[in-house]
Amino acid sequence: MSELRKDPIVDRWVIVAAERGRRPSDFPSAQSQRTGSSGASCPFCEGNEGKTPPEIWAIRPDGSAPDTAGWQVRVVPNKFPALGIEGSTDRRGLGMFDLMSGVGAHEVIIETPEHDWSIGDDGPDTLEPVLRAYQLRLADLYRDSRFRYCVLFRNYGQRAGASLDHPHSQIIAVPIVPLRLKDKLAAAQQHYARKERCLFCDVINQELTLGDRVVLDREHFVALCPFAARFPFELAIFPKRHEHDLRLLDDLRRRALAEILSDCLHYLRSALGDPAYNYVVNTAPNPLPRPGRPGYWGTLEYDFHWHIEIMPRMTRIAGFEWGTGFYINPVSPENATAFLHERMAEEALDDQAETAG
Amino acid sequence: MSELRKDPIVDRWVIVAAERGRRPSDFPSAQSQRTGSSGASCPFCEGNEGKTPPEIWAIRPDGSAPDTAGWQVRVVPNKFPALGIEGSTDRRGLGMFDLMSGVGAHEVIIETPEHDWSIGDDGPDTLEPVLRAYQLRLADLYRDSRFRYCVLFRNYGQRAGASLDHPHSQIIAVPIVPLRLKDKLAAAQQHYARKERCLFCDVINQELTLGDRVVLDREHFVALCPFAARFPFELAIFPKRHEHDLRLLDDLRRRALAEILSDCLHYLRSALGDPAYNYVVNTAPNPLPRPGRPGYWGTLEYDFHWHIEIMPRMTRIAGFEWGTGFYINPVSPENATAFLHERMAEEALDDQAETAG
Repeated sequence: MSELRKDPIVDRWVIVAAERGRRPSDFPSAQSQRTGSSGASCPFCEGNEGKTPPEIWAIRPDGSAPDTAGWQVRVVPNKFPALGIEGSTDRRGLGMFDLMSGVGAHEVIIETPEHDWSIGDDGPDTLEPVLRAYQLRLADLYRDSRFRYCVLFRNYGQRAGASLDHPHSQIIAVPIVPLRLKDKLAAAQQHYARKERCLFCDVINQELTLGDRVVLDREHFVALCPFAARFPFELAIFPKRHEHDLRLLDDLRRRALAEILSDCLHYLRSALGDPAYNYVVNTAPNPLPRPGRPGYWGTLEYDFHWHIEIMPRMTRIAGFEWGTGFYINPVSPENATAFLHERMAEEALDDQAETAG
Repeated sequence: MSELRKDPIVDRWVIVAAERGRRPSDFPSAQSQRTGSSGASCPFCEGNEGKTPPEIWAIRPDGSAPDTAGWQVRVVPNKFPALGIEGSTDRRGLGMFDLMSGVGAHEVIIETPEHDWSIGDDGPDTLEPVLRAYQLRLADLYRDSRFRYCVLFRNYGQRAGASLDHPHSQIIAVPIVPLRLKDKLAAAQQHYARKERCLFCDVINQELTLGDRVVLDREHFVALCPFAARFPFELAIFPKRHEHDLRLLDDLRRRALAEILSDCLHYLRSALGDPAYNYVVNTAPNPLPRPGRPGYWGTLEYDFHWHIEIMPRMTRIAGFEWGTGFYINPVSPENATAFLHERMAEEALDDQAETAG
């Protein structure tokens, strides 16, 4: 029998159609499908720095000049930005309609000079400086009070919307707080008002007690298959300590996040055969500057609990989902968790055998 | 300069990135991509009636027996339903989580015996009985008070989630009112409480006055590119007369709806090169039976205004959209409308030339 489950944070129902329960091999077209753009013509490759707009920030261990080779992570403006940096954020009306200028920022974080890099043993070493770039760009963009929110995300594989193969993430700063974030914040705020506890912390603690959706349980972070996951093998990574804003992550825990994120991406790849995926960092919005008056967001933002959502693109979103905003998930989160655990156990055995041999 | 626009009904912002404005030929992979399941093995083809579960309803002009050839439209249960028909809709808790059994109905409306049928001059003749099937199945399913809502939709092409090429729609009855419908209803209710006018009627009237997003303006129906469209060439068809429930559509206006729906699908196909698309019928939820006490939904449902949303799948939904629930639309609704009007004018000229020749 399939089941309807409600997400306790977004108030959204999901159909978990367990009878349709399928093995990962039943999703033949989920592979990442590289676009095939070659290294030579790739604007993100080392040596092609002139093909991007001038860099905003980079890690250059050898102290090389901007826009030359020798970097480890490089942040550049998106050549085809969805939003432009200049302009005011005044809202206008057109009869019943609301509109405003498309003010914002759209940057690309090039994660490594290596075109064909993929998650392996060096995952944490590669991701740690990328996470540092996320934090620094977020901090810099939030200095501009026109930007109410920053979305940090990675599209991997054509099916997930990636137009270039070279490993990269994106950050988009927007002059509004998006509806989905507003909903999450409002739910957290209401929960806090009633219980004086964080909604996310309560969910995390309950999941750690129940156990059957916990994929990885580490000292500082936990990775879960959410109870009302929309997609097969959807994962979420939460800091165990209450923290509303990604900017607060310190060096020690940044390393720990690089490790758990790398492990999640590695096990998805290994268990599902290199699926396309999106991951998205959810962090608190930019506090509104309201001198002498603690603002609405100024209070609310501390009730948030930042997290990373990882969404493998195994299924196609069709009319039912678009029409209703609720989802059919053919793999229950418990089955997905068990399947990932099996894969982990197999890999651990292989490693032992190698060490013994 | 790109623009941020807010949907007046769902309170959702959309980035209209007009500078990225592209011609339909810039979306090379939007084609419907038939799955290639051949007529002989197709369970929806005439002669293969035994390959589906027993039919629920059919139009059989020659009075043939159920589950034999000779039908025009045929409704059967989905062989792999997302929800099962048996069970109670009691909600349960699991700590902080809510769940209920996956009770519902999932039916397929086979629109024509012809495997390779596509929108042409006979569009209205084929769609009219399909719309009648929509209305009758909706009426029948709403007799079951466990079903709070019915979603009627059509997935066309692999990219839009269709797994069989044979023309068909689906209806899914669910035991909850989905979030997106609730939001639309709440907005309509609030607007009515303030103005004593229908929110949708107000939007339609304003669009007819402004004119630059009106694709087709007919006696009984209007087709628009919505002001805050999420997708390139997204369309919406509204009845001009206020009507909350698809079941109220009479014979005369059913024919008119078949005509405007057929024309919308034809012009999208002709202008965009046979794109994959989803369309979804949005109608009022099932009124809760509450003898002697006019229910909450019982009031609210009349404030709804049914409509059909048509969503060509030209773009891929990526991390930004999943992370925020707001969308980047690279073609402004005004440009999309103008482009469709050009195509209509070209076709009218061709028709004239043919008639003259």
